[in-house]
Amino acid sequence: MNAKSGTPKKNLMFFSGRAHPELAEEVAKHLNVSITPQSAYDFANGEIFVRFEESVRGCDAFVIQSHCEPINQWVMEQLIMVDALKRASAKRITVIMPFYPYARQDKKHKGREPISARLIADLFKTAGADRIMTVDLHTAQIQGFFDGPVDHLFAQTLLSKYVKEKYGADNVTVVSPDAGRTKLAEKWADDLGGVPIAFIHKTRDPLRPNEVVANRVVGEVRDRLCVVIDDMVDTGGTIAKAVDQLLDEGAADVVVAASHGVLSGPAPERLSQCGAKEVVFANTLPIPDVKRFEKLTVLSIAPLLARAIQEVFEDGSVTSLFDGNA
Amino acid sequence: MNAKSGTPKKNLMFFSGRAHPELAEEVAKHLNVSITPQSAYDFANGEIFVRFEESVRGCDAFVIQSHCEPINQWVMEQLIMVDALKRASAKRITVIMPFYPYARQDKKHKGREPISARLIADLFKTAGADRIMTVDLHTAQIQGFFDGPVDHLFAQTLLSKYVKEKYGADNVTVVSPDAGRTKLAEKWADDLGGVPIAFIHKTRDPLRPNEVVANRVVGEVRDRLCVVIDDMVDTGGTIAKAVDQLLDEGAADVVVAASHGVLSGPAPERLSQCGAKEVVFANTLPIPDVKRFEKLTVLSIAPLLARAIQEVFEDGSVTSLFDGNA
Amino acid sequence: MNAKSGTPKKNLMFFSGRAHPELAEEVAKHLNVSITPQSAYDFANGEIFVRFEESVRGCDAFVIQSHCEPINQWVMEQLIMVDALKRASAKRITVIMPFYPYARQDKKHKGREPISARLIADLFKTAGADRIMTVDLHTAQIQGFFDGPVDHLFAQTLLSKYVKEKYGADNVTVVSPDAGRTKLAEKWADDLGGVPIAFIHKTRDPLRPNEVVANRVVGEVRDRLCVVIDDMVDTGGTIAKAVDQLLDEGAADVVVAASHGVLSGPAPERLSQCGAKEVVFANTLPIPDVKRFEKLTVLSIAPLLARAIQEVFEDGSVTSLFDGNA
Amino acid sequence: MNAKSGTPKKNLMFFSGRAHPELAEEVAKHLNVSITPQSAYDFANGEIFVRFEESVRGCDAFVIQSHCEPINQWVMEQLIMVDALKRASAKRITVIMPFYPYARQDKKHKGREPISARLIADLFKTAGADRIMTVDLHTAQIQGFFDGPVDHLFAQTLLSKYVKEKYGADNVTVVSPDAGRTKLAEKWADDLGGVPIAFIHKTRDPLRPNEVVANRVVGEVRDRLCVVIDDMVDTGGTIAKAVDQLLDEGAADVVVAASHGVLSGPAPERLSQCGAKEVVFANTLPIPDVKRFEKLTVLSIAPLLARAIQEVFEDGSVTSLFDGNA
Amino acid sequence: MNAKSGTPKKNLMFFSGRAHPELAEEVAKHLNVSITPQSAYDFANGEIFVRFEESVRGCDAFVIQSHCEPINQWVMEQLIMVDALKRASAKRITVIMPFYPYARQDKKHKGREPISARLIADLFKTAGADRIMTVDLHTAQIQGFFDGPVDHLFAQTLLSKYVKEKYGADNVTVVSPDAGRTKLAEKWADDLGGVPIAFIHKTRDPLRPNEVVANRVVGEVRDRLCVVIDDMVDTGGTIAKAVDQLLDEGAADVVVAASHGVLSGPAPERLSQCGAKEVVFANTLPIPDVKRFEKLTVLSIAPLLARAIQEVFEDGSVTSLFDGNA
Amino acid sequence: MNAKSGTPKKNLMFFSGRAHPELAEEVAKHLNVSITPQSAYDFANGEIFVRFEESVRGCDAFVIQSHCEPINQWVMEQLIMVDALKRASAKRITVIMPFYPYARQDKKHKGREPISARLIADLFKTAGADRIMTVDLHTAQIQGFFDGPVDHLFAQTLLSKYVKEKYGADNVTVVSPDAGRTKLAEKWADDLGGVPIAFIHKTRDPLRPNEVVANRVVGEVRDRLCVVIDDMVDTGGTIAKAVDQLLDEGAADVVVAASHGVLSGPAPERLSQCGAKEVVFANTLPIPDVKRFEKLTVLSIAPLLARAIQEVFEDGSVTSLFDGNA
Repeated sequence: MNAKSGTPKKNLMFFSGRAHPELAEEVAKHLNVSITPQSAYDFANGEIFVRFEESVRGCDAFVIQSHCEPINQWVMEQLIMVDALKRASAKRITVIMPFYPYARQDKKHKGREPISARLIADLFKTAGADRIMTVDLHTAQIQGFFDGPVDHLFAQTLLSKYVKEKYGADNVTVVSPDAGRTKLAEKWADDLGGVPIAFIHKTRDPLRPNEVVANRVVGEVRDRLCVVIDDMVDTGGTIAKAVDQLLDEGAADVVVAASHGVLSGPAPERLSQCGAKEVVFANTLPIPDVKRFEKLTVLSIAPLLARAIQEVFEDGSVTSLFDGNA
Repeated sequence: MNAKSGTPKKNLMFFSGRAHPELAEEVAKHLNVSITPQSAYDFANGEIFVRFEESVRGCDAFVIQSHCEPINQWVMEQLIMVDALKRASAKRITVIMPFYPYARQDKKHKGREPISARLIADLFKTAGADRIMTVDLHTAQIQGFFDGPVDHLFAQTLLSKYVKEKYGADNVTVVSPDAGRTKLAEKWADDLGGVPIAFIHKTRDPLRPNEVVANRVVGEVRDRLCVVIDDMVDTGGTIAKAVDQLLDEGAADVVVAASHGVLSGPAPERLSQCGAKEVVFANTLPIPDVKRFEKLTVLSIAPLLARAIQEVFEDGSVTSLFDGNA
Repeated sequence: MNAKSGTPKKNLMFFSGRAHPELAEEVAKHLNVSITPQSAYDFANGEIFVRFEESVRGCDAFVIQSHCEPINQWVMEQLIMVDALKRASAKRITVIMPFYPYARQDKKHKGREPISARLIADLFKTAGADRIMTVDLHTAQIQGFFDGPVDHLFAQTLLSKYVKEKYGADNVTVVSPDAGRTKLAEKWADDLGGVPIAFIHKTRDPLRPNEVVANRVVGEVRDRLCVVIDDMVDTGGTIAKAVDQLLDEGAADVVVAASHGVLSGPAPERLSQCGAKEVVFANTLPIPDVKRFEKLTVLSIAPLLARAIQEVFEDGSVTSLFDGNA
Repeated sequence: MNAKSGTPKKNLMFFSGRAHPELAEEVAKHLNVSITPQSAYDFANGEIFVRFEESVRGCDAFVIQSHCEPINQWVMEQLIMVDALKRASAKRITVIMPFYPYARQDKKHKGREPISARLIADLFKTAGADRIMTVDLHTAQIQGFFDGPVDHLFAQTLLSKYVKEKYGADNVTVVSPDAGRTKLAEKWADDLGGVPIAFIHKTRDPLRPNEVVANRVVGEVRDRLCVVIDDMVDTGGTIAKAVDQLLDEGAADVVVAASHGVLSGPAPERLSQCGAKEVVFANTLPIPDVKRFEKLTVLSIAPLLARAIQEVFEDGSVTSLFDGNA
Repeated sequence: MNAKSGTPKKNLMFFSGRAHPELAEEVAKHLNVSITPQSAYDFANGEIFVRFEESVRGCDAFVIQSHCEPINQWVMEQLIMVDALKRASAKRITVIMPFYPYARQDKKHKGREPISARLIADLFKTAGADRIMTVDLHTAQIQGFFDGPVDHLFAQTLLSKYVKEKYGADNVTVVSPDAGRTKLAEKWADDLGGVPIAFIHKTRDPLRPNEVVANRVVGEVRDRLCVVIDDMVDTGGTIAKAVDQLLDEGAADVVVAASHGVLSGPAPERLSQCGAKEVVFANTLPIPDVKRFEKLTVLSIAPLLARAIQEVFEDGSVTSLFDGNA
Repeated sequence: MNAKSGTPKKNLMFFSGRAHPELAEEVAKHLNVSITPQSAYDFANGEIFVRFEESVRGCDAFVIQSHCEPINQWVMEQLIMVDALKRASAKRITVIMPFYPYARQDKKHKGREPISARLIADLFKTAGADRIMTVDLHTAQIQGFFDGPVDHLFAQTLLSKYVKEKYGADNVTVVSPDAGRTKLAEKWADDLGGVPIAFIHKTRDPLRPNEVVANRVVGEVRDRLCVVIDDMVDTGGTIAKAVDQLLDEGAADVVVAASHGVLSGPAPERLSQCGAKEVVFANTLPIPDVKRFEKLTVLSIAPLLARAIQEVFEDGSVTSLFDGNA
């Protein structure tokens, strides 16, 4: 006999970078797998070393990393993990980035800037990634930066469901903190049952083009429960100012909801001290105890990630998780 | 002597597809070059043939095509021209697409859709394009779809200058016809001197998710001159409806301004019969006489394209044409 | 347990562009599958939109399109379908082009021409095609234009079998309508049992190099049944002239046989009015009723395509369908 | 001052593999350059080593190799030279292959064969070749195998000019030794002033499909001077048989002309002993004294190669060397 | 039903070039498969032709070639086999090179040299290789030259086991024949149980930099059994000189052990006539009878290759074959 | 006139990341250019932003970054700078990495490891780097990891010149701190005039394979000035131990010399407190005052980098800077 036959096998293996082990553990639990053991450490000069403790040959590899600070280190670690998987003969490599790094630099705002979000996609492709799974991209066009399949999951549905259940009976207006998020506000308004939307218009002085001279609230907010939405909250300045302005203009109450709680520097203080009644994030990024405050609610995307991984592994449908919208 | 020295030369050559010869001629005139003579025709079954009548070896080639209907034919023609230039040893090939084809399909709106705008970028890269020059992209992220330099020119500055000069003394509100263009409206508002903005909120019935049940104008429009802006007008339905609604809600007058006048099917009739006082487009796409109507104003981008080509050829600065913003 | 095991599945899914639904339906029937439901339509400006109605994740996708007029539209549609399949995680994508578009532009006939047939191969590769299946290429070298497997099927065996059965008892000469198809005539002659061949020599005047001054029949045709063969018939001019010249030179009868009935413009009229006794094509391209005429015979390649798809899907042998010659 | 300006230089450097130094020297002389000195030798186990003795940084490199036996060694040597040039920062690398290796394997004749001619193109692309210059390809489609510019020169014009001058007054018929070269014969016939053509039809027994049972001369050859043409002559068997058959069928005289004199094994003996009056080749491949015979004429392509290199270096036109046909 | 399901199959097929059929046969026997039948021969001018006699569609292909002299021919043959497999739809192609060709040219020793070992990796990638399996690379960094998985097997463990069993009781010193192999000597010393190491220091005269003026033995060798190790022995000059010098400096006895017996030209004579007691090689390269001599021992790597192929086919672990070190 | 002629220009522009501004400034001064002004800063979550303040269109860009800690940040910054240059139409981009990051991970030491040094090369290629300039690679094979020209400069010649001038009259032995650097020691010994070499052999217990049980000095060191050499010193443990062992075994004095002073963590203390008489580094990496100590000498490579940049810009010869060895 010339050829030798065998029975194809199919193994899901789950890998985690060191940035946000809690989320990885939670996903693993939902998936009912263990995180593949690995050695991962930094050399004295900061170079990262990774070795997997078990054979990964032929596996269907899912590699999760949450891109919080120090963000460049975690990007590089995930790239190195992908390289190691490729060279160790993993069959397929899915990179999971609950928070897509450098998503805000998705275009040249002015000349001679990078498009770092495209660069990130290319770096992972080069390292060996076959596909990307990510959550609530800053702009959906980033899907097109990767030359291959991108599974784009929506934490936003999780957030809006929570808000609807808790505040749905109120007189809600969805508020975008700037003109660029009005489309997202519209999606929220649909999810909440066709409520009105408003946004804050930043006016610039034509003589001093880079300076915002006034914020005007456009739309009805007086005596309404304002849900200020965004895809991410970084230093919290814009959001905190928006909350206060809305209250000044007569809003009954303000709730803040965003997918990614980046929460850099003064963010926890600003958010806890602004007049918002509640602040809601998903746990795509780690929010350590030191950054938590009383009004904060964190919703877990682990069940969603686990279900999506399962669908990808079994050639099921990720789109079906979102009623055809992903 | 081992090596043989020579003096490097540098030649700009300008090529045009057959879609919009008037624009190409106008650009050529501003550049003070002739369009390179070529044979271009369709075989009986629609296959396109192109041959250049002069040597293009070593030239700095600029290839313009306006992607109007039949759009797939013009895309293919430009691809074939690029292939012929590559194989005939052009030194550098810049593809000029005043209207970027398939720009609206810049993301998967739902699962199992293409990202055709990325595909277009890849097709031109594959054919041999070194760089792209385009005007007022539907979303700026499309720049990142091309793996190379993209010169993104702004017809919008041309339009806003025209509107400001003609209507700047009026009580202007800039109006976005839907939530997705609010950011663009903000840019217009800045250009017009810090005027207010409004937008039209499409409400959906949660029980019938794909159906718009009402359009609400969000922002102040009563007794104001409303400038309805967009990047392109295709069939004109949304715009015409917006104009009428604004007038219904008390707008003093309405002007429509958009970069790309696609003007498919019923658009000329709709625009001429809606209540708009004036409709302004750039000539990125051909607008034949049969589609023109009384209230229509068409501004030429040929001078802008010619200046940009000149800067690219001379290694000058395209960014400087837009005060650092391109 | 660290890894999670699964049982690999394998699904054939069959997709069809809108150019020639009859052929796709016929292939599907032979394959015993349904064509995957999809939304495919043109936007007002001619941009094509495609969305698949079912999950295609992990499938072995076969995408058929017949490249008739408007050929550039159908090329672009198939490219967009491939992009959508790639982004929706199809496992393998086979592009089926019964008539390979732009096959005649397979070389630079003169300087500064494109090689469009190579461009087509590269465009499909870029979009995401893993392999190509095609029928009776204009030149077999086009196989080498694609960087991957090409299954090259032979409708010619279908045609020659038909001709042999019907006219095998006659005194047959195979005639190539020009010098470039003589090799194909030789293959036909072998299939018909070692009959003689002839061809028509186009003489050019050395003083007017682009002008054909005379057509000389080289080879024996008097009192013989001449089978004029070609890979495709486009406008039918060359073929009709060849038929009449053969009859003038004493041929007993003339039959025309070609794989691809492009049949542009005047072709149906020319073919029906020339002296040919019968004209035989395969249905690689649609031949609508309006183009059909009495003497026309159309043979279906659907059974052949279906068997080839089945072999590809099951890792069988396509070569075996042609006695080792494909 | 931020930037530092310089004057661009342009240097032609000419490199030669070890296969056919005479041709390289002759080209160099016509170009008025020296061949760049290099160390090139084989290690004991046959591995080739190359180092250039002078800086090649920034040069416009032309690398010639004639692919005679041992052909794989000379292919590898040229690949290694290209790699060394790329890594040593040559600005542009043109690979000159007067005889394109593996050109006959330009398609799969049967299933499970390589397409070695495409492989060769890809190997040189991978090594770093920017462009290819070659002479009289076995099939012109091979141009399309390389992803970049190919300058395809015609030794055939050299040969036909020679034949016309010497035998033009005779009653000439151009003869293709098999059906596949009839198109080439037609080009020859045009060059010789519109003379007739003939070819030899190899008949196969349908019961023994791989066996040629008879060679029929198709076309008029009696009492005529037959010019048997081909692109290459390898072992000379087909050609010698054709010559003798033509004489048997009454040809007045026979002349053989082909671009590439491969002349393997018995070829010199066969050609010198067949009844041909003269045998004409170009010197794309070395023809050492031991392979030469009385009736042999070798025409030099060195002037043509030198002029083409000069045009490429100076961004002139190679097409113009062939009246627009290259 | 829309999709058509099937059961995935998995077939190992084993292919061999013509360089070292004995090793291929031995591996096949250990694997319990037959070598896939193929036609492989040289055309008269040295061009190689390959066709597989059976369908290879969907197979997991392993292609072995031993790169002995004429090395460029065997490299090209293996490239052509890979191309044929790719075009015939093999599912995965593993190139097995027991002796990696051009491994010594793994860096530029001086300016304007090629890095041929990288070139080799790129050529195989281009031809279609998915992965490489090789044995005892000249430098382990060559793994990084291939963009994909490399299974690096160790014949050295085979050799050291043999030496330890036979000479372990002696007073062993491991000797590197030059400074560059000292690290390898250290690995040997560990394998032999922590024995001392020495090396031969080649001193150069600063006034004549390319000339070695003296060889100094650094380390203890007097009255000890010296095991001179290397990765390959080519012409044997360095090794034979080392053996004699060690004996001169009082070594009790000398054994030579290297993975690859290249054994070019004078090597057999030099090795048999130097004072070594035994010379041990693996059979990664063919050692024909004419090159064999009395003191020569050849150990077979066929069992190791077969086990590694089996692990790769079954998605097992190759690393486990070497206690985690491969 | 169809084409438009221009005079080609050539501009060197010099860019610097933020890791080691002193070295960049020093190189710029030697080159007589300014560093191109740029905005470069970190967003609150660590994402890096870069914009160039001047047009870079058409420039010959040289981008320097020293990869010290936090090394991943500096890698990412340089990648982003390259992306911005590519998209802003720089003509050629040379990445200067005086210390190549992740150079030690140049192979898989065991299974399932990355080859990070190759990954780094690929990431820069992907971002848009045309060429790399680097200094004293950990292994020269890393040159082969980049698909393009690598200019490999030697700080080692700077160091050995310094040591020779200062200690040349002494009785010098060059000592490699482990077996893997013996080849480098041999180069040093040649540079110092043919002096002896020694190395330290780490013995492992066969029963505890990952444990070093003894360090044996192999070679003559008693009463000699030992120059302990290496390519880099990271934490200084190995080197400090080697120094002390050499002094224990009777060395007259010990000098330490290495190209790259990584000097992580305890290194300054260890080096200053070990018995070395002098410790010499190049300034490829920043050595801030806090890490400096009395016996430390730092030699500047800025003149060498500036000369190499000048040669690259002017298409001169970098090899000539090192007597043909680079």
